[in-house]
Amino acid sequence: MKKLEKLYEGKAKIIYATEDPELVVQYFKDDATAFNGEKKGIIRNKGEMNNAISSAIFRFLEDKGIKTHFVSAPSEREMVVRKVDIVPIEVVMRNVTAGSLSKRMGVEEGMLLPKTVFELYYKDDSLGDPMINGYHVAAFGLCSAEDLAEIKKRAFRVNELMQEFFSARGITLVDFKLEFGKTADGTLLLADEITPDGCRLWNSETGEKMDKDRFRRDLGSVEEAYEEVLRKVTS
Amino acid sequence: MKKLEKLYEGKAKIIYATEDPELVVQYFKDDATAFNGEKKGIIRNKGEMNNAISSAIFRFLEDKGIKTHFVSAPSEREMVVRKVDIVPIEVVMRNVTAGSLSKRMGVEEGMLLPKTVFELYYKDDSLGDPMINGYHVAAFGLCSAEDLAEIKKRAFRVNELMQEFFSARGITLVDFKLEFGKTADGTLLLADEITPDGCRLWNSETGEKMDKDRFRRDLGSVEEAYEEVLRKVTS
Repeated sequence: MKKLEKLYEGKAKIIYATEDPELVVQYFKDDATAFNGEKKGIIRNKGEMNNAISSAIFRFLEDKGIKTHFVSAPSEREMVVRKVDIVPIEVVMRNVTAGSLSKRMGVEEGMLLPKTVFELYYKDDSLGDPMINGYHVAAFGLCSAEDLAEIKKRAFRVNELMQEFFSARGITLVDFKLEFGKTADGTLLLADEITPDGCRLWNSETGEKMDKDRFRRDLGSVEEAYEEVLRKVTS
Repeated sequence: MKKLEKLYEGKAKIIYATEDPELVVQYFKDDATAFNGEKKGIIRNKGEMNNAISSAIFRFLEDKGIKTHFVSAPSEREMVVRKVDIVPIEVVMRNVTAGSLSKRMGVEEGMLLPKTVFELYYKDDSLGDPMINGYHVAAFGLCSAEDLAEIKKRAFRVNELMQEFFSARGITLVDFKLEFGKTADGTLLLADEITPDGCRLWNSETGEKMDKDRFRRDLGSVEEAYEEVLRKVTS
Protein backbone atom coordinates (compact mmCIF):
# COMPACT_ATOMS: atom_id res chain seq x y z
CA MET A 1 0.00 0.00 0.00
CA LYS A 2 1.40 3.32 -1.12
CA LYS A 3 2.21 5.84 1.62
CA LEU A 4 0.97 9.38 0.95
CA GLU A 5 1.48 12.39 3.19
CA LYS A 6 2.71 12.12 6.75
CA LEU A 7 -0.22 12.71 9.09
CA TYR A 8 1.53 12.47 12.43
CA GLU A 9 4.92 11.59 13.82
CA GLY A 10 5.10 10.19 17.33
CA LYS A 11 7.99 8.98 19.43
CA ALA A 12 8.10 5.47 17.97
CA LYS A 13 5.89 5.60 14.88
CA ILE A 14 4.91 7.71 11.90
CA ILE A 15 1.38 7.67 10.52
CA TYR A 16 0.92 8.11 6.75
CA ALA A 17 -2.23 8.61 4.73
CA THR A 18 -3.01 6.09 1.99
CA GLU A 19 -5.21 6.20 -1.09
CA ASP A 20 -7.98 4.66 1.00
CA PRO A 21 -9.43 7.32 3.34
CA GLU A 22 -10.31 4.63 5.88
CA LEU A 23 -6.78 3.23 6.11
CA VAL A 24 -3.43 4.60 7.23
CA VAL A 25 0.06 3.14 7.45
CA GLN A 26 1.85 2.94 10.82
CA TYR A 27 5.60 3.04 10.15
CA PHE A 28 7.63 1.67 13.08
CA LYS A 29 10.86 3.53 13.93
CA ASP A 30 13.85 2.38 15.96
CA ASP A 31 13.67 5.48 18.20
CA ALA A 32 13.23 4.74 21.88
CA THR A 33 12.31 7.28 24.54
CA ALA A 34 11.66 7.03 28.25
CA PHE A 35 10.68 9.24 31.18
CA ASN A 36 8.34 11.34 29.03
CA GLY A 37 10.99 11.91 26.37
CA GLU A 38 13.83 12.92 28.73
CA LYS A 39 15.87 9.86 27.76
CA LYS A 40 16.32 9.19 24.05
CA GLY A 41 18.05 6.45 22.12
CA ILE A 42 17.85 3.87 19.38
CA ILE A 43 17.02 0.21 19.74
CA ARG A 44 18.46 -1.36 16.59
CA ASN A 45 15.77 -3.03 14.45
CA LYS A 46 13.09 -2.21 17.02
CA GLY A 47 10.83 -0.99 14.24
CA GLU A 48 10.87 -4.32 12.46
CA MET A 49 10.61 -6.33 15.66
CA ASN A 50 7.75 -4.26 17.08
CA ASN A 51 5.80 -4.40 13.84
CA ALA A 52 6.08 -8.18 13.83
CA ILE A 53 5.31 -8.54 17.56
CA SER A 54 2.35 -6.19 17.45
CA SER A 55 0.98 -7.80 14.29
CA ALA A 56 1.13 -11.24 15.90
CA ILE A 57 -0.64 -10.01 19.03
CA PHE A 58 -3.32 -8.09 17.13
CA ARG A 59 -3.96 -11.19 14.98
CA PHE A 60 -4.27 -13.31 18.11
CA LEU A 61 -6.65 -10.81 19.73
CA GLU A 62 -8.76 -10.52 16.55
CA ASP A 63 -9.03 -14.33 16.51
CA LYS A 64 -10.38 -14.12 20.05
CA GLY A 65 -13.00 -11.56 19.10
CA ILE A 66 -11.30 -8.29 20.09
CA LYS A 67 -11.82 -5.55 17.51
CA THR A 68 -8.50 -3.91 16.66
CA HIS A 69 -7.37 -1.40 14.06
CA PHE A 70 -5.00 -4.01 12.53
CA VAL A 71 -5.44 -4.81 8.83
CA SER A 72 -2.13 -6.20 7.57
CA ALA A 73 1.65 -5.89 7.79
CA PRO A 74 2.72 -5.51 4.15
CA SER A 75 6.38 -4.77 4.86
CA GLU A 76 8.85 -5.13 7.71
CA ARG A 77 8.24 -1.70 9.20
CA GLU A 78 4.75 -0.97 7.92
CA MET A 79 1.41 -1.90 9.41
CA VAL A 80 -1.80 -1.00 7.61
CA VAL A 81 -4.45 -0.05 10.13
CA ARG A 82 -7.92 1.40 10.11
CA LYS A 83 -7.87 5.15 10.52
CA VAL A 84 -9.08 6.20 13.97
CA ASP A 85 -9.18 9.23 16.19
CA ILE A 86 -7.23 8.16 19.24
CA VAL A 87 -9.17 8.51 22.50
CA PRO A 88 -6.83 10.72 24.61
CA ILE A 89 -6.60 8.15 27.38
CA GLU A 90 -3.91 5.61 28.08
CA VAL A 91 -5.15 2.49 29.82
CA VAL A 92 -2.66 0.59 31.96
CA MET A 93 -3.42 -2.92 33.22
CA ARG A 94 -1.25 -4.30 36.00
CA ASN A 95 -0.95 -7.88 37.23
CA VAL A 96 2.33 -7.59 39.13
CA THR A 97 3.81 -4.56 40.92
CA ALA A 98 6.50 -2.69 38.95
CA GLY A 99 7.57 0.72 37.75
CA SER A 100 5.41 3.72 38.64
CA LEU A 101 2.96 1.58 40.63
CA SER A 102 5.74 0.40 42.96
CA LYS A 103 6.94 3.96 43.37
CA ARG A 104 3.41 5.34 43.87
CA MET A 105 2.44 2.78 46.52
CA GLY A 106 5.86 2.31 48.11
CA VAL A 107 6.04 -1.42 47.42
CA GLU A 108 8.70 -3.70 45.91
CA GLU A 109 8.55 -4.73 42.29
CA GLY A 110 7.45 -8.25 41.49
CA MET A 111 4.55 -8.71 43.91
CA LEU A 112 1.62 -10.53 42.32
CA LEU A 113 -1.41 -8.27 42.73
CA PRO A 114 -4.42 -10.07 44.28
CA LYS A 115 -6.61 -8.12 41.85
CA THR A 116 -5.78 -6.58 38.50
CA VAL A 117 -5.20 -2.85 38.70
CA PHE A 118 -6.81 -0.75 35.95
CA GLU A 119 -5.38 2.75 35.57
CA LEU A 120 -6.20 5.69 33.32
CA TYR A 121 -3.80 8.39 32.19
CA TYR A 122 -4.59 11.56 30.29
CA LYS A 123 -2.61 11.29 27.07
CA ASP A 124 -0.83 14.65 27.01
CA ASP A 125 2.96 14.78 26.74
CA SER A 126 3.14 18.42 27.83
CA LEU A 127 1.48 17.43 31.12
CA GLY A 128 3.52 14.23 31.48
CA ASP A 129 0.51 11.94 30.92
CA PRO A 130 -0.99 12.44 34.40
CA MET A 131 -3.02 9.74 36.13
CA ILE A 132 -6.75 10.41 36.05
CA ASN A 133 -9.94 8.51 36.83
CA GLY A 134 -13.35 8.09 35.24
CA TYR A 135 -14.64 11.32 36.83
CA HIS A 136 -11.92 13.33 35.08
CA VAL A 137 -12.82 11.59 31.82
CA ALA A 138 -16.44 12.70 32.27
CA ALA A 139 -15.77 16.23 33.54
CA PHE A 140 -13.25 17.00 30.79
CA GLY A 141 -15.18 15.16 28.07
CA LEU A 142 -12.29 12.87 27.09
CA CYS A 143 -14.75 10.22 25.89
CA SER A 144 -18.36 9.22 26.51
CA ALA A 145 -19.38 7.17 29.54
CA GLU A 146 -20.41 4.38 27.13
CA ASP A 147 -17.01 4.35 25.45
CA LEU A 148 -15.21 4.36 28.81
CA ALA A 149 -17.30 1.41 30.02
CA GLU A 150 -16.53 -0.45 26.80
CA ILE A 151 -12.81 0.41 27.03
CA LYS A 152 -12.71 -0.95 30.59
CA LYS A 153 -14.51 -4.16 29.61
CA ARG A 154 -12.21 -4.75 26.66
CA ALA A 155 -9.06 -3.92 28.60
CA PHE A 156 -9.89 -6.60 31.18
CA ARG A 157 -10.65 -9.11 28.40
CA VAL A 158 -7.42 -8.24 26.56
CA ASN A 159 -5.54 -8.71 29.82
CA GLU A 160 -7.00 -12.20 30.28
CA LEU A 161 -6.19 -13.17 26.71
CA MET A 162 -2.70 -11.73 26.75
CA GLN A 163 -1.87 -13.32 30.11
CA GLU A 164 -2.76 -16.72 28.59
CA PHE A 165 -0.87 -15.94 25.40
CA PHE A 166 2.35 -14.90 27.14
CA SER A 167 2.09 -17.51 29.88
CA ALA A 168 2.01 -20.25 27.23
CA ARG A 169 5.28 -18.77 25.94
CA GLY A 170 7.04 -18.69 29.30
CA ILE A 171 6.53 -14.95 29.79
CA THR A 172 4.83 -13.18 32.70
CA LEU A 173 2.70 -10.24 31.60
CA VAL A 174 3.51 -7.79 34.41
CA ASP A 175 1.69 -4.74 33.04
CA PHE A 176 0.89 -3.07 29.74
CA LYS A 177 -0.54 0.04 28.13
CA LEU A 178 -3.44 0.12 25.69
CA GLU A 179 -4.85 2.85 23.51
CA PHE A 180 -8.20 2.89 21.78
CA GLY A 181 -9.50 4.85 18.83
CA LYS A 182 -12.74 5.54 17.03
CA THR A 183 -13.28 5.22 13.30
CA ALA A 184 -15.19 7.85 11.33
CA ASP A 185 -18.32 5.70 11.68
CA GLY A 186 -17.92 5.59 15.48
CA THR A 187 -16.56 2.07 15.91
CA LEU A 188 -14.30 1.70 18.95
CA LEU A 189 -11.13 -0.24 18.14
CA LEU A 190 -8.05 -1.29 20.07
CA ALA A 191 -5.35 0.80 18.39
CA ASP A 192 -1.70 1.89 18.61
CA GLU A 193 0.66 -1.07 19.19
CA ILE A 194 1.26 -3.87 21.68
CA THR A 195 5.02 -4.34 21.99
CA PRO A 196 7.79 -4.50 24.59
CA ASP A 197 7.82 -0.69 24.40
CA GLY A 198 4.53 -0.59 26.28
CA CYS A 199 4.38 -3.97 28.06
CA ARG A 200 6.46 -5.27 30.95
CA LEU A 201 7.37 -8.84 30.06
CA TRP A 202 9.41 -10.99 32.42
CA ASN A 203 10.84 -14.42 31.75
CA SER A 204 8.55 -16.57 33.91
CA GLU A 205 11.39 -18.78 35.13
CA THR A 206 14.31 -16.40 35.58
CA GLY A 207 12.41 -13.15 36.10
CA GLU A 208 14.65 -11.52 33.50
CA LYS A 209 13.19 -8.36 31.98
CA MET A 210 12.36 -8.62 28.26
CA ASP A 211 11.03 -5.13 27.62
CA LYS A 212 11.82 -1.42 27.46
CA ASP A 213 12.94 -1.38 31.10
CA ARG A 214 16.24 -2.77 29.73
CA PHE A 215 16.59 0.54 27.86
CA ARG A 216 15.10 2.75 30.63
CA ARG A 217 17.37 1.28 33.29
CA ASP A 218 20.47 0.67 31.15
CA LEU A 219 20.37 -3.09 31.73
CA GLY A 220 22.01 -3.94 28.40
CA SER A 221 21.01 -6.61 25.85
CA VAL A 222 18.02 -4.52 24.80
CA GLU A 223 17.90 -5.80 21.20
CA GLU A 224 18.40 -9.39 22.34
CA ALA A 225 15.41 -9.09 24.69
CA TYR A 226 13.12 -7.77 21.93
CA GLU A 227 14.40 -10.53 19.61
CA GLU A 228 13.57 -13.15 22.22
CA VAL A 229 10.06 -11.75 22.63
CA LEU A 230 9.62 -11.75 18.86
CA ARG A 231 10.83 -15.36 18.64
CA LYS A 232 8.43 -16.50 21.37
CA VAL A 233 5.48 -14.47 20.13
CA THR A 234 5.75 -15.78 16.58
CA SER A 235 6.57 -19.38 17.51
CA MET B 1 -13.87 15.67 79.24
CA LYS B 2 -10.46 14.87 80.70
CA LYS B 3 -7.65 14.30 78.22
CA LEU B 4 -5.50 11.24 78.95
CA GLU B 5 -2.48 10.08 76.97
CA LYS B 6 -1.63 11.46 73.56
CA LEU B 7 -2.51 8.83 70.92
CA TYR B 8 -1.37 10.62 67.79
CA GLU B 9 -0.05 13.99 66.73
CA GLY B 10 -0.74 15.13 63.19
CA LYS B 11 0.11 18.31 61.35
CA ALA B 12 -2.88 20.29 62.61
CA LYS B 13 -4.35 18.21 65.45
CA ILE B 14 -3.46 16.05 68.41
CA ILE B 15 -5.61 13.09 69.40
CA TYR B 16 -5.92 12.24 73.12
CA ALA B 17 -7.48 9.25 74.80
CA THR B 18 -10.29 9.85 77.29
CA GLU B 19 -11.77 7.80 80.12
CA ASP B 20 -14.34 6.49 77.65
CA PRO B 21 -12.68 3.93 75.34
CA GLU B 22 -15.10 4.86 72.57
CA LEU B 23 -14.28 8.58 72.63
CA VAL B 24 -11.18 10.65 71.96
CA VAL B 25 -10.42 14.36 72.03
CA GLN B 26 -9.22 16.16 68.88
CA TYR B 27 -7.14 19.15 69.96
CA PHE B 28 -6.81 21.77 67.18
CA LYS B 29 -3.39 23.43 66.82
CA ASP B 30 -2.45 26.67 65.06
CA ASP B 31 0.23 24.90 62.99
CA ALA B 32 -0.21 25.15 59.25
CA THR B 33 1.65 23.10 56.66
CA ALA B 34 1.50 22.93 52.90
CA PHE B 35 3.09 21.04 50.00
CA ASN B 36 3.27 17.80 52.01
CA GLY B 37 4.93 19.52 54.98
CA GLU B 38 7.58 21.41 53.01
CA LYS B 39 6.11 24.77 54.02
CA LYS B 40 5.40 25.32 57.70
CA GLY B 41 3.90 28.18 59.65
CA ILE B 42 1.37 29.31 62.18
CA ILE B 43 -2.08 30.71 61.52
CA ARG B 44 -2.92 32.59 64.71
CA ASN B 45 -6.03 31.18 66.44
CA LYS B 46 -6.55 28.68 63.64
CA GLY B 47 -7.11 25.94 66.22
CA GLU B 48 -10.03 27.76 67.82
CA MET B 49 -11.48 28.86 64.49
CA ASN B 50 -11.22 25.43 62.89
CA ASN B 51 -12.76 23.70 65.88
CA ALA B 52 -15.73 26.07 65.70
CA ILE B 53 -16.04 25.84 61.91
CA SER B 54 -15.78 22.06 61.82
CA SER B 55 -18.19 21.65 64.72
CA ALA B 56 -20.75 23.81 62.94
CA ILE B 57 -20.39 21.82 59.71
CA PHE B 58 -20.49 18.43 61.42
CA ARG B 59 -23.64 19.51 63.32
CA PHE B 60 -25.21 20.63 60.03
CA LEU B 61 -24.32 17.34 58.32
CA GLU B 62 -25.58 15.26 61.25
CA ASP B 63 -28.87 17.16 61.06
CA LYS B 64 -29.06 16.15 57.41
CA GLY B 65 -28.49 12.48 58.20
CA ILE B 66 -24.75 12.11 57.61
CA LYS B 67 -23.06 10.01 60.27
CA THR B 68 -19.96 11.79 61.57
CA HIS B 69 -17.56 11.17 64.43
CA PHE B 70 -18.56 14.48 66.05
CA VAL B 71 -19.87 14.37 69.60
CA SER B 72 -19.32 17.81 71.13
CA ALA B 73 -16.95 20.76 71.36
CA PRO B 74 -16.44 21.22 75.11
CA SER B 75 -13.73 23.87 74.83
CA GLU B 76 -12.34 26.28 72.27
CA ARG B 77 -9.68 23.93 70.91
CA GLU B 78 -11.15 20.56 71.85
CA MET B 79 -13.61 18.41 69.96
CA VAL B 80 -14.85 15.15 71.45
CA VAL B 81 -15.27 12.59 68.70
CA ARG B 82 -15.98 8.89 68.43
CA LYS B 83 -12.81 6.85 68.25
CA VAL B 84 -12.25 5.47 64.77
CA ASP B 85 -9.55 3.81 62.73
CA ILE B 86 -9.03 6.19 59.86
CA VAL B 87 -9.46 4.58 56.41
CA PRO B 88 -6.11 5.38 54.72
CA ILE B 89 -7.80 7.18 51.84
CA GLU B 90 -8.32 10.87 51.29
CA VAL B 91 -11.39 11.70 49.25
CA VAL B 92 -11.36 14.94 47.29
CA MET B 93 -14.53 16.35 45.75
CA ARG B 94 -14.17 19.07 43.15
CA ASN B 95 -16.82 21.41 41.75
CA VAL B 96 -14.55 24.06 40.23
CA THR B 97 -11.03 23.68 38.80
CA ALA B 98 -8.21 24.73 41.15
CA GLY B 99 -4.93 23.64 42.66
CA SER B 100 -3.58 20.23 41.72
CA LEU B 101 -6.48 19.52 39.35
CA SER B 102 -5.65 22.61 37.28
CA LYS B 103 -2.00 21.60 37.21
CA ARG B 104 -2.79 17.96 36.41
CA MET B 105 -5.14 18.75 33.53
CA GLY B 106 -3.44 21.92 32.29
CA VAL B 107 -6.48 24.14 32.78
CA GLU B 108 -7.06 27.51 34.42
CA GLU B 109 -8.39 27.77 37.94
CA GLY B 110 -12.00 28.81 38.40
CA MET B 111 -13.73 26.80 35.66
CA LEU B 112 -17.02 25.32 36.82
CA LEU B 113 -16.80 21.57 36.22
CA PRO B 114 -19.78 20.20 34.26
CA LYS B 115 -19.65 17.16 36.55
CA THR B 116 -18.29 16.77 40.06
CA VAL B 117 -14.86 15.16 40.14
CA PHE B 118 -14.33 12.50 42.81
CA GLU B 119 -10.68 11.69 43.54
CA LEU B 120 -8.95 9.24 45.84
CA TYR B 121 -5.53 9.64 47.39
CA TYR B 122 -3.56 7.09 49.37
CA LYS B 123 -3.03 8.69 52.77
CA ASP B 124 0.72 8.26 53.22
CA ASP B 125 2.89 11.30 53.91
CA SER B 126 6.11 9.46 53.04
CA LEU B 127 4.73 8.84 49.53
CA GLY B 128 3.28 12.36 49.22
CA ASP B 129 -0.35 11.13 49.32
CA PRO B 130 -0.39 9.82 45.73
CA MET B 131 -3.56 9.75 43.64
CA ILE B 132 -5.08 6.30 43.35
CA ASN B 133 -8.33 4.77 42.13
CA GLY B 134 -10.72 2.09 43.31
CA TYR B 135 -8.60 -0.68 41.78
CA HIS B 136 -5.63 0.33 43.93
CA VAL B 137 -7.92 0.37 46.97
CA ALA B 138 -8.97 -3.22 46.18
CA ALA B 139 -5.55 -4.56 45.20
CA PHE B 140 -3.81 -3.07 48.24
CA GLY B 141 -6.68 -3.80 50.64
CA LEU B 142 -7.08 -0.20 51.78
CA CYS B 143 -10.76 -0.80 52.56
CA SER B 144 -13.51 -3.18 51.50
CA ALA B 145 -15.45 -2.69 48.28
CA GLU B 146 -18.58 -2.12 50.36
CA ASP B 147 -16.91 0.61 52.41
CA LEU B 148 -15.55 2.28 49.28
CA ALA B 149 -19.01 2.27 47.67
CA GLU B 150 -20.47 3.78 50.83
CA ILE B 151 -17.68 6.38 51.06
CA LYS B 152 -18.35 7.43 47.48
CA LYS B 153 -22.11 7.68 48.05
CA ARG B 154 -21.65 9.75 51.21
CA ALA B 155 -19.00 12.00 49.65
CA PHE B 156 -21.39 12.98 46.86
CA ARG B 157 -24.18 13.59 49.38
CA VAL B 158 -21.88 15.66 51.61
CA ASN B 159 -20.85 17.67 48.56
CA GLU B 160 -24.49 18.45 47.73
CA LEU B 161 -25.24 19.46 51.30
CA MET B 162 -22.10 21.53 51.73
CA GLN B 163 -22.61 23.30 48.40
CA GLU B 164 -26.05 24.41 49.60
CA PHE B 165 -24.71 25.32 53.03
CA PHE B 166 -21.89 27.51 51.71
CA SER B 167 -23.88 28.91 48.80
CA ALA B 168 -26.48 30.23 51.26
CA ARG B 169 -23.59 32.04 52.98
CA GLY B 170 -22.17 33.63 49.84
CA ILE B 171 -19.31 31.14 49.52
CA THR B 172 -18.48 28.89 46.55
CA LEU B 173 -17.36 25.41 47.59
CA VAL B 174 -14.58 24.86 45.04
CA ASP B 175 -13.23 21.57 46.39
CA PHE B 176 -12.65 19.80 49.67
CA LYS B 177 -11.06 16.78 51.29
CA LEU B 178 -12.87 14.21 53.40
CA GLU B 179 -11.62 11.38 55.56
CA PHE B 180 -13.62 8.50 56.92
CA GLY B 181 -13.05 6.16 59.81
CA LYS B 182 -14.48 3.01 61.28
CA THR B 183 -15.44 2.53 64.92
CA ALA B 184 -14.54 -0.64 66.82
CA ASP B 185 -18.01 -2.00 66.02
CA GLY B 186 -17.48 -1.41 62.29
CA THR B 187 -19.57 1.72 61.80
CA LEU B 188 -18.31 3.96 59.00
CA LEU B 189 -18.23 7.64 60.03
CA LEU B 190 -17.19 10.87 58.38
CA ALA B 191 -14.15 11.84 60.46
CA ASP B 192 -11.20 14.25 60.72
CA GLU B 193 -12.28 17.89 60.22
CA ILE B 194 -13.98 20.10 57.65
CA THR B 195 -12.27 23.48 57.72
CA PRO B 196 -10.58 26.02 55.44
CA ASP B 197 -7.43 23.87 55.85
CA GLY B 198 -8.97 21.21 53.62
CA CYS B 199 -11.64 23.09 51.64
CA ARG B 200 -11.25 25.69 48.94
CA LEU B 201 -13.79 28.41 49.70
CA TRP B 202 -14.16 31.44 47.46
CA ASN B 203 -16.28 34.51 48.08
CA SER B 204 -19.08 33.94 45.55
CA GLU B 205 -19.19 37.60 44.52
CA THR B 206 -15.56 38.70 44.53
CA GLY B 207 -13.85 35.33 44.00
CA GLU B 208 -11.58 36.12 46.93
CA LYS B 209 -9.95 33.03 48.45
CA MET B 210 -11.02 32.30 52.04
CA ASP B 211 -8.96 29.20 52.74
CA LYS B 212 -5.48 27.76 53.21
CA ASP B 213 -4.44 28.86 49.71
CA ARG B 214 -3.89 32.30 51.33
CA PHE B 215 -1.17 30.62 53.42
CA ARG B 216 0.12 28.30 50.66
CA ARG B 217 0.45 31.15 48.18
CA ASP B 218 1.44 33.93 50.60
CA LEU B 219 -1.65 36.00 49.80
CA GLY B 220 -1.80 37.64 53.23
CA SER B 221 -4.84 38.17 55.48
CA VAL B 222 -4.90 34.48 56.34
CA GLU B 223 -6.39 34.88 59.81
CA GLU B 224 -8.95 37.38 58.52
CA ALA B 225 -10.12 34.88 55.89
CA TYR B 226 -10.59 32.10 58.45
CA GLU B 227 -12.41 34.56 60.74
CA GLU B 228 -14.74 35.50 57.91
CA VAL B 229 -15.51 31.84 57.19
CA LEU B 230 -16.15 31.27 60.89
CA ARG B 231 -18.47 34.26 61.03
CA LYS B 232 -20.45 33.09 57.99
CA VAL B 233 -20.55 29.44 59.02
CA THR B 234 -21.85 30.21 62.51
CA SER B 235 -24.29 32.95 61.47
